[in-house]
Amino acid sequence: MLVIMKNDATKEQVIAVVREIERMGYQGIPIPGALRTAVCITGNQGPVDDSRLLSLDGVKETVRVTKPYKLVSRETHPQPTVITIDNVAIGGGKPVVMAGPCAIENEKQTLTIARIVKAHGAQVFRGGAFKPRTSPYSFQGLGEEGLRLLRKVREETGLLIITEAIDHTNIMLVEEYADIIQIGARNMQNYSLLRRAGRSPKPILLKRGFAATIEELLMSAEYIMAAGNSQVILCERGIRTFADNTRNTLDLSAIPSIKEVSHLPVVVDPSHAAGRREYVIPLSRGAIAVGADGLLVEVHHDPVHALSDGRQSLDADQFATLMTQIK
Amino acid sequence: MLVIMKNDATKEQVIAVVREIERMGYQGIPIPGALRTAVCITGNQGPVDDSRLLSLDGVKETVRVTKPYKLVSRETHPQPTVITIDNVAIGGGKPVVMAGPCAIENEKQTLTIARIVKAHGAQVFRGGAFKPRTSPYSFQGLGEEGLRLLRKVREETGLLIITEAIDHTNIMLVEEYADIIQIGARNMQNYSLLRRAGRSPKPILLKRGFAATIEELLMSAEYIMAAGNSQVILCERGIRTFADNTRNTLDLSAIPSIKEVSHLPVVVDPSHAAGRREYVIPLSRGAIAVGADGLLVEVHHDPVHALSDGRQSLDADQFATLMTQIK
Amino acid sequence: MLVIMKNDATKEQVIAVVREIERMGYQGIPIPGALRTAVCITGNQGPVDDSRLLSLDGVKETVRVTKPYKLVSRETHPQPTVITIDNVAIGGGKPVVMAGPCAIENEKQTLTIARIVKAHGAQVFRGGAFKPRTSPYSFQGLGEEGLRLLRKVREETGLLIITEAIDHTNIMLVEEYADIIQIGARNMQNYSLLRRAGRSPKPILLKRGFAATIEELLMSAEYIMAAGNSQVILCERGIRTFADNTRNTLDLSAIPSIKEVSHLPVVVDPSHAAGRREYVIPLSRGAIAVGADGLLVEVHHDPVHALSDGRQSLDADQFATLMTQIK
Amino acid sequence: MLVIMKNDATKEQVIAVVREIERMGYQGIPIPGALRTAVCITGNQGPVDDSRLLSLDGVKETVRVTKPYKLVSRETHPQPTVITIDNVAIGGGKPVVMAGPCAIENEKQTLTIARIVKAHGAQVFRGGAFKPRTSPYSFQGLGEEGLRLLRKVREETGLLIITEAIDHTNIMLVEEYADIIQIGARNMQNYSLLRRAGRSPKPILLKRGFAATIEELLMSAEYIMAAGNSQVILCERGIRTFADNTRNTLDLSAIPSIKEVSHLPVVVDPSHAAGRREYVIPLSRGAIAVGADGLLVEVHHDPVHALSDGRQSLDADQFATLMTQIK
Repeated sequence: MLVIMKNDATKEQVIAVVREIERMGYQGIPIPGALRTAVCITGNQGPVDDSRLLSLDGVKETVRVTKPYKLVSRETHPQPTVITIDNVAIGGGKPVVMAGPCAIENEKQTLTIARIVKAHGAQVFRGGAFKPRTSPYSFQGLGEEGLRLLRKVREETGLLIITEAIDHTNIMLVEEYADIIQIGARNMQNYSLLRRAGRSPKPILLKRGFAATIEELLMSAEYIMAAGNSQVILCERGIRTFADNTRNTLDLSAIPSIKEVSHLPVVVDPSHAAGRREYVIPLSRGAIAVGADGLLVEVHHDPVHALSDGRQSLDADQFATLMTQIK
Repeated sequence: MLVIMKNDATKEQVIAVVREIERMGYQGIPIPGALRTAVCITGNQGPVDDSRLLSLDGVKETVRVTKPYKLVSRETHPQPTVITIDNVAIGGGKPVVMAGPCAIENEKQTLTIARIVKAHGAQVFRGGAFKPRTSPYSFQGLGEEGLRLLRKVREETGLLIITEAIDHTNIMLVEEYADIIQIGARNMQNYSLLRRAGRSPKPILLKRGFAATIEELLMSAEYIMAAGNSQVILCERGIRTFADNTRNTLDLSAIPSIKEVSHLPVVVDPSHAAGRREYVIPLSRGAIAVGADGLLVEVHHDPVHALSDGRQSLDADQFATLMTQIK
Repeated sequence: MLVIMKNDATKEQVIAVVREIERMGYQGIPIPGALRTAVCITGNQGPVDDSRLLSLDGVKETVRVTKPYKLVSRETHPQPTVITIDNVAIGGGKPVVMAGPCAIENEKQTLTIARIVKAHGAQVFRGGAFKPRTSPYSFQGLGEEGLRLLRKVREETGLLIITEAIDHTNIMLVEEYADIIQIGARNMQNYSLLRRAGRSPKPILLKRGFAATIEELLMSAEYIMAAGNSQVILCERGIRTFADNTRNTLDLSAIPSIKEVSHLPVVVDPSHAAGRREYVIPLSRGAIAVGADGLLVEVHHDPVHALSDGRQSLDADQFATLMTQIK
Repeated sequence: MLVIMKNDATKEQVIAVVREIERMGYQGIPIPGALRTAVCITGNQGPVDDSRLLSLDGVKETVRVTKPYKLVSRETHPQPTVITIDNVAIGGGKPVVMAGPCAIENEKQTLTIARIVKAHGAQVFRGGAFKPRTSPYSFQGLGEEGLRLLRKVREETGLLIITEAIDHTNIMLVEEYADIIQIGARNMQNYSLLRRAGRSPKPILLKRGFAATIEELLMSAEYIMAAGNSQVILCERGIRTFADNTRNTLDLSAIPSIKEVSHLPVVVDPSHAAGRREYVIPLSRGAIAVGADGLLVEVHHDPVHALSDGRQSLDADQFATLMTQIK
């Protein structure tokens, strides 16, 4: 349930509503909006008796939330959320490009690629320092050494940094170095990690699990928001189907499906979905045309010799083409 | 195998090659190209001995075809196929819009919708006279009466007509009335119908089965081409997955996947894929941005009262918006 | 809607009910049962006014059918259907084994395999004379010559014959030679063929399409029954999923799912589902344990040299093992 | 690569081989077998030069491992693994039944159900104290209080205990109270948790992710074994498909698929796969017939009032029927 405050409600009146909700045994989370504040009630298992709440000063009305998710819902927060980091606004109407290698390999590779993506207009640099790997014997990333290289990229190029945290230990490191923390598809329902991400001061990019419905993705975002972090970016990266023309089937209808019910920004990762660089440019054009708030794209200055996932990485020229085509 | 003729090979030399292929027990199909003619050998189960062919006049070389499909392959026909009907070119670089109701209901509905889609710039009118239905008790279409209404649309508006043939009997009627014959997703592997479509003088729009791979779609197109009809348009219309945010998951990566290996034009049906009109406009923008040669869109002047599939039909205003946005 | 007749209703009273239903513009199909006859009303688009019907002699009550399918439903026909051909009863409690090669190749192969499967206790011989093929260039079956070999098998061994019909032309031939006509997965929604099968005097084995829900399978069976043929056997043969350990994922839960709502017998084809002979015996044991009314199994005396699908064919010894294990 | 020791190789010779492997920069893991010991080399990215190893005393030969997984592979460990806890042997030929409620609710519920499943022959009691929930607002389990109730079950009934650990914190608690630690489907690729489970002294039951291939499941088991825990039980619990007759499609072919390449025992959870109690008994029969080493079944003395997943829980009578039917 949402308690909608009057337009001129005072901060003290909002606090009184939260206190009353807590007295009822639930949690009250204030959601400031452009015109009015709402207080979202969470923690209730069934209907809530709103009679006491309606009698409080400053309360305009209560609204039942019809979805299983609350904080991520447009019902709670009708305007789209814009996440602003320095001078980059994600969800603000202008698509944001996050580009870089699958894995951070070494300083030279990292800075070379960073300069390329910066030169062509990317605003965020991506690169994995901790890599979730199907095999325990595969290269698991450079770890903190990789994070230090990402910091160097930020210092030298001014690009924002996004990198993945894969467990409760390395998220502590990642949030020190990164501007945006990525939670990968395989961890979309790692609730312990989601809760921890909800206590981070940094924005979270949450990837859709490759067999997750839109509602499940939103419920996972709800975990993060319920733990206190309202800066969540969702990411469509392909779903697992029988189709074998791509590694995963990119579900661009996820964009309008999410935007219909949620206020959170949505970006698209065409590289992991396609698994082949040949399809990344057309799918990127498609994602932007459908309404994505940004792209997460793999770029490598020398894809043939990339340590990881070179087959789906654009080279410098292809990335230049991509940036021209999505303008 | 392909027998590539020299640029200055004569018609007689091509015929001699075909004859020699027939003597070898196979079939030889000449494929004229911009610069040179190729003769495609079909019907062989294994490798072909090309020594005799290479010694014939006008033969430049032979090329092994690496895919299970031949006539639909870019190896056989490197340039994209453009299908021109009157003044409409499908595959010629400018997207073609095919729009109209799911089912032809009556004269008034048909003409009203036809005028709407014509006014906003569609070039082809779509509408079902024979409807494949999951239930034997559902409305199965007006049949030939529906085809007569489609002819009226053509006479009054000049729009080309596309309508579905669902069996060997009604394809005979459909090819009399329609400019393009549609083979639906459920019939994508109805080989008897495909072969019959291959003997039709009219272009065929072949929809991807909702659980078909790209290779299976191309093999079905090969059935049509192998039977003699080279005018085939492919159509992506969504695949069946676990995802429940749309009726089917629209696989826009099908467009670059098909174009990489085949010369045939590809159109997209966002209406059937989405199953909800709210997603049709963004998905249409996406399809065009990815590189579709056209759209197949459901439009109804009064979707609420549509006999069939009103939930996914755009109304007149929405169709106007669509046409503006994809320009 | 079902009109339930009294236990002692006369044939004339049943006919009077059918006539009245026809007067109302619908179709009335009598369904004889062990204790009483029901008359199923089909062809109505919405609710039916049953007041006139209830006043007729011999009518006990009317019952609304809650499913989109009627004739295949347990609501209409509570007892399981048993299809008896000569001395073989399908659905009668004892699993029936239908075994033989994927394709009929020649007389020697056919009779050799027939003797093997007969010796080990199969009751029905399977083998394709008309083969639906993904490629137009693949072996399409021996046609009527194959049917004649199947007749020979019947004459020599007494085995019943099941073979596939793939279009309106060859179903005419198939029904002359076969005891059971198979409609393949790719034709599950070939409504024209289903209607034709509904007018055949022979029982129909209808395979589940590899992307069909149980409800769609039942609706397709309804097409056959609505056209007049009540002898329908359903067949689970695997569905298309992301899983790559088998060609298709065998959905054994289809058996209780179908039996919960329908009275039709269900058999299982583990060979096509698995695509590998190594899994056929355990999956056959599983199918029988779950409750299948029979198996459709590929057997070849020399799988390595089989013209078609040898990889999934059991050899004579393996078939003997299978028959021992499912006893 | 595997280094196969001679049948009479001494412990010292095995240690010398491990040391040499470590000198080469890899890890050497001794795998004792019935007749001989093998030493598995892990940590190499490419081919290993085995010349030095072959010259060591007690070494018979080296064998290249052809799969991406090593320790879980039958190549490394040809005999099936049997996991024995007290007097219960999992993988030993006799199916083991693990039964109990979805969630531990309170003492009375827990002990009531435990007595029921004990009385009918289950050997292991299942019940969740920590529940992974799609919604942050759902009941997340009783936590350590639930574990204490499970200990009470063990003390009173002698049943072994299996319960789920969902993160690095609660696995420490779970391994104190449980005999088998369950890793759920959503955590199948939570590599941090898998590595931690690999350092646990307790056997691990690893559920297949609902969109995981068999190879991915085995790679996740490899994480556990590579970290030192060789007691791993795999569990098939249904995969996500388009089919809507069950919550997930139970893939019983997973059993022969796993057993073909791995030595680990495989159990089946029909309750979560089906999502409906009506299908649990037939699917359990099927699982055992196909060759499962055990079942994980939800049982509740009062399913209608179960806090969680009552729809798929068997009641006492149904569980009694199940136990009779799988004998």
